[in-house]
Amino acid sequence: MPEYKAPLRDMRFLIDEVFDFHGRYQALGASDATPDMVAAILDEGSKFCEQVLAPLNRSGDEEGCHFDNGVVTTPKGFKEAYAQYVEGGWNGVASDPAYGGQGLPHSLGLLLSEMIGASNVSWGMYPGLTRGAMSAIHAHGSQAQKDLYLARMTAGTWTGTMCLTEPHCGTDLGIIKTRAVPNADGSHAISGTKIFISAGEHDLSENIVHLVLAKLPDAPAGTKGISLFIVPKFLPDAEGNVGARNAVSCGSIEHKMGIKASATCVMNFDGATGYLIGEPNKGLHCMFTMMNHARLGTGMQGLCLGETSYQGAVRYARERLQMRSLTGPKAPDKPADPIIVHPDVRRMLLTMKAFNEGNRALAYFTAQLLDTEHLSQDAAERERAADLLAFLTPICKAFMTETGQEVTNLGMQVYGGHGYIREWGMEQLVRDCRIAQIYEGTNGIQALDLLGRKVLGSQGKLLRGFTKLVHQLCQAQAEHPQLKGQVAQLAALNAQWGELTQQVGLAAMKNADEVGAASVDYLMFSGYVTLAYFWLRIALVAREKLDAGSGEAAFYEAKLATADFYFSRLLPRTAAHAAAIQAGAAGLMSLSAEQFSL
Amino acid sequence: MPEYKAPLRDMRFLIDEVFDFHGRYQALGASDATPDMVAAILDEGSKFCEQVLAPLNRSGDEEGCHFDNGVVTTPKGFKEAYAQYVEGGWNGVASDPAYGGQGLPHSLGLLLSEMIGASNVSWGMYPGLTRGAMSAIHAHGSQAQKDLYLARMTAGTWTGTMCLTEPHCGTDLGIIKTRAVPNADGSHAISGTKIFISAGEHDLSENIVHLVLAKLPDAPAGTKGISLFIVPKFLPDAEGNVGARNAVSCGSIEHKMGIKASATCVMNFDGATGYLIGEPNKGLHCMFTMMNHARLGTGMQGLCLGETSYQGAVRYARERLQMRSLTGPKAPDKPADPIIVHPDVRRMLLTMKAFNEGNRALAYFTAQLLDTEHLSQDAAERERAADLLAFLTPICKAFMTETGQEVTNLGMQVYGGHGYIREWGMEQLVRDCRIAQIYEGTNGIQALDLLGRKVLGSQGKLLRGFTKLVHQLCQAQAEHPQLKGQVAQLAALNAQWGELTQQVGLAAMKNADEVGAASVDYLMFSGYVTLAYFWLRIALVAREKLDAGSGEAAFYEAKLATADFYFSRLLPRTAAHAAAIQAGAAGLMSLSAEQFSL
Repeated sequence: MPEYKAPLRDMRFLIDEVFDFHGRYQALGASDATPDMVAAILDEGSKFCEQVLAPLNRSGDEEGCHFDNGVVTTPKGFKEAYAQYVEGGWNGVASDPAYGGQGLPHSLGLLLSEMIGASNVSWGMYPGLTRGAMSAIHAHGSQAQKDLYLARMTAGTWTGTMCLTEPHCGTDLGIIKTRAVPNADGSHAISGTKIFISAGEHDLSENIVHLVLAKLPDAPAGTKGISLFIVPKFLPDAEGNVGARNAVSCGSIEHKMGIKASATCVMNFDGATGYLIGEPNKGLHCMFTMMNHARLGTGMQGLCLGETSYQGAVRYARERLQMRSLTGPKAPDKPADPIIVHPDVRRMLLTMKAFNEGNRALAYFTAQLLDTEHLSQDAAERERAADLLAFLTPICKAFMTETGQEVTNLGMQVYGGHGYIREWGMEQLVRDCRIAQIYEGTNGIQALDLLGRKVLGSQGKLLRGFTKLVHQLCQAQAEHPQLKGQVAQLAALNAQWGELTQQVGLAAMKNADEVGAASVDYLMFSGYVTLAYFWLRIALVAREKLDAGSGEAAFYEAKLATADFYFSRLLPRTAAHAAAIQAGAAGLMSLSAEQFSL
Repeated sequence: MPEYKAPLRDMRFLIDEVFDFHGRYQALGASDATPDMVAAILDEGSKFCEQVLAPLNRSGDEEGCHFDNGVVTTPKGFKEAYAQYVEGGWNGVASDPAYGGQGLPHSLGLLLSEMIGASNVSWGMYPGLTRGAMSAIHAHGSQAQKDLYLARMTAGTWTGTMCLTEPHCGTDLGIIKTRAVPNADGSHAISGTKIFISAGEHDLSENIVHLVLAKLPDAPAGTKGISLFIVPKFLPDAEGNVGARNAVSCGSIEHKMGIKASATCVMNFDGATGYLIGEPNKGLHCMFTMMNHARLGTGMQGLCLGETSYQGAVRYARERLQMRSLTGPKAPDKPADPIIVHPDVRRMLLTMKAFNEGNRALAYFTAQLLDTEHLSQDAAERERAADLLAFLTPICKAFMTETGQEVTNLGMQVYGGHGYIREWGMEQLVRDCRIAQIYEGTNGIQALDLLGRKVLGSQGKLLRGFTKLVHQLCQAQAEHPQLKGQVAQLAALNAQWGELTQQVGLAAMKNADEVGAASVDYLMFSGYVTLAYFWLRIALVAREKLDAGSGEAAFYEAKLATADFYFSRLLPRTAAHAAAIQAGAAGLMSLSAEQFSL
């Protein structure tokens, strides 16, 4: 497995130099998020991830989870690592102090999540799902429910799940079959089967709190008739002591392509006691509370696995000797040159670097929006942040995982044949990353959410909220002595973004299929332009530091070179996506289902 | 596992309607390749593949190969299937009748290989490597060597390998360490370690004939000092009876991402008896004889796995009910519509279909060139075929596997979460396909071969050999009433192809790194234009058939719609590759090795 070292310098660059986390924390009144606290989280968090979680990543993949008669055992070391995590209070870093959390801003929680996901994405699923469940209980639970569940989940001694998918439906939750029948005591009896439940059963925590979508007897059909229930594995008494086993059990675990150390469970609810959370028939709305969080978290997996893959690939490319440089030997004392001298190896590495560092900027920016949405005292500012967040969330989820898949595949390619061998760990990163394009709403669904719901659904308002930022930056920097070429390139694409949106919007008024026909290419186009905005911001900062005579010239020059690479070699992919968007729906819809295979 | 059905209608379309195999066979004097013979191979071959090989594909992946103290056991059923294959005489279909082969043209052998690879790519590695080794012995062996080895390898009772890679070198064969010391009897003692040896040890055949690259004591340094040796597992006597065990053994097998049922062996040669094949120090040249074949075969794996993935995806998309069409319910009697109604699902399926069918056309065209190169009586025609073959081989290998990877990933994506679960078999196709981008020369090496050796190395002659065909077709069809738009699009790209080549060629005269900087994007650009040429040819035939009032209108309309899709949604990707080619080397080379991670 490539050794993971938290990329603290790059994280610091974004935190301190590009996005001024400190200034934002002060403006938002997040007085606990001091520079010392940020340093402590980066330092101690990176140690925990590098020293405790990362060493369990390969072995976790080889060993996988084991299922025996309803009991799920996680790979060796997972339980001990989780105990250490709970002991260190890591799970509550960004949680409500009313329930024992540290109450730090979400953006700080994200830094920790990034390091966890890059060290051991399977392990990270257990606390990740818990935090998703916590956010739904926090937003929609009664005070009694919060009192009962949140303290233990914040500590991490209880974990959580999200139970949505059923064998016949994932995307289409309107047709779920799980039923909730009222009991005399106000609770409900939940019956049905849920599949693909991450962390549904395991040996890390003393209780598991399932959040389950089910239908009440009198529920309207479709998505307007779904309710959300808390179904604990063990029923707690009023003091929160773990009591009798509930009628929920794990029927089996899935054998998957990757994230093998994350238990993916079939969960059977056989009249299990459940407690309605939020209002009846509003369950999907409650679930979406978790999902925005979870979608950013899933997007992060593309970055996390991409980062680890990049670290491995750079190390290998510096060490592996193979062929001579076409411009003459670079290591004449050795039998061959290190492969990092070859332009095509550099192309692969720079592609990885450009996506990783650009995605990291996108993620940190988005996390700051989360902070603002939660902490700002200014309603208009909160609304602006919420709008940008709504717009960027599907881009984070889909673009970061599509590019993460490209990055991990390139990392594997750098290793040649060795990349295909399990012991090197590079192929595991590809397999682990692949699920992120699928779960939490496939990337196709994200694209429909972006184009259909967010952009066209707001008559373009949510798009303009972001393109305005791009426009302002481009206007301000139009005459930048070194970067004006890139500014112009971005400005042109920003304008094209609006034009393409109008074209699709007009076409969609006549034919709703135009949205689905354009959506994935539209999302990818949007992602490339969005990342270009962040790469320009990065380049501007780097340029400024160099002009000011920074002692870290090599670092900032690398930023400029990577920005250059992004603008000249990756951003032109927008042309292909634009053409595909403009191709329209007719060509997709002309064949009958039978004509697809004759 | 998705059920595999040989796509006989599409194969027939290319064989009979686009490429006129029969006419070519007659022109080449391949009188045994009668229409009845073609039918027999398609009918009987597809039955064997569908009924014997395909059912062993999932279980082979789960079980993998087992290694115990030098002995490798293939998964259950592999041995029996191989015995049936030998019994049926399948291995010798396209082999020299002088050694018991059927002597049919290579293009017919390719049809069989396609069906084998699509059914069970791991199983297909064993006979595939054998045929590669046979071609090297046939081309470079002495008559005695041919007599001794070829009959048994043609029958398949002996299998073969290619032993090139060592722990410290794969691409860079000039630095191999395996030594060959002359024995008194004219044989050599071979010592060294080879890795990644497919079919290096297994239980399918009574003997294994290793073709091994090694260095003679007085060999010049680098690639000019490599010789090729035959090293049989068991030393045969003069009659070819299997005798004493040779000093070659399997040290271990690799644990890989995919093709788990194909034994990938570490082979230890401890003074093993080897027999020089061809001239001393000309081993790399002899090896390249196999490699052109093997590279087309590896490219085929992209098509094969893509085809199987497509078949699964179409079936699933027709059956899986999820969400309603945005233009209103299409299956109102069901709880939801089959997902094939959704434009984005169709986008995925059409992408798969367009690559598969285009790649198949490219492969069959290339196979006809092999026929011509081997069978034509006309030296000028042979040379033209050889030139085109040299040009198209790296495109087949790299473009077909890059797109195969995209296709298998899309097939998995169509299945949503189920695609990630092993039992459905879709993720296995992704894993099995991934190696094809790496082995037989990574796709980066193919790209250097195409741009550096083939195109620039011939001063553009090999490129012009193909662009002339494109130009002639475009000229002839410039006024085609329905297709002239696509003709114009292809003609413009064909011209751009030449311009880009000139630009890179000029830049490379000043800086050799320009070749490596452009190569992969150049290969992809070339691949897209090449496939457009074949899609135009397909569309022309389909159009003609429809105009003639064919009774199979649905089939030909699907061809036209897929061609449309290819031209409007996939071919524009050339713009991104052109921009990357034009970005040049400077941006790739500016960073020091250290600056890649600071």
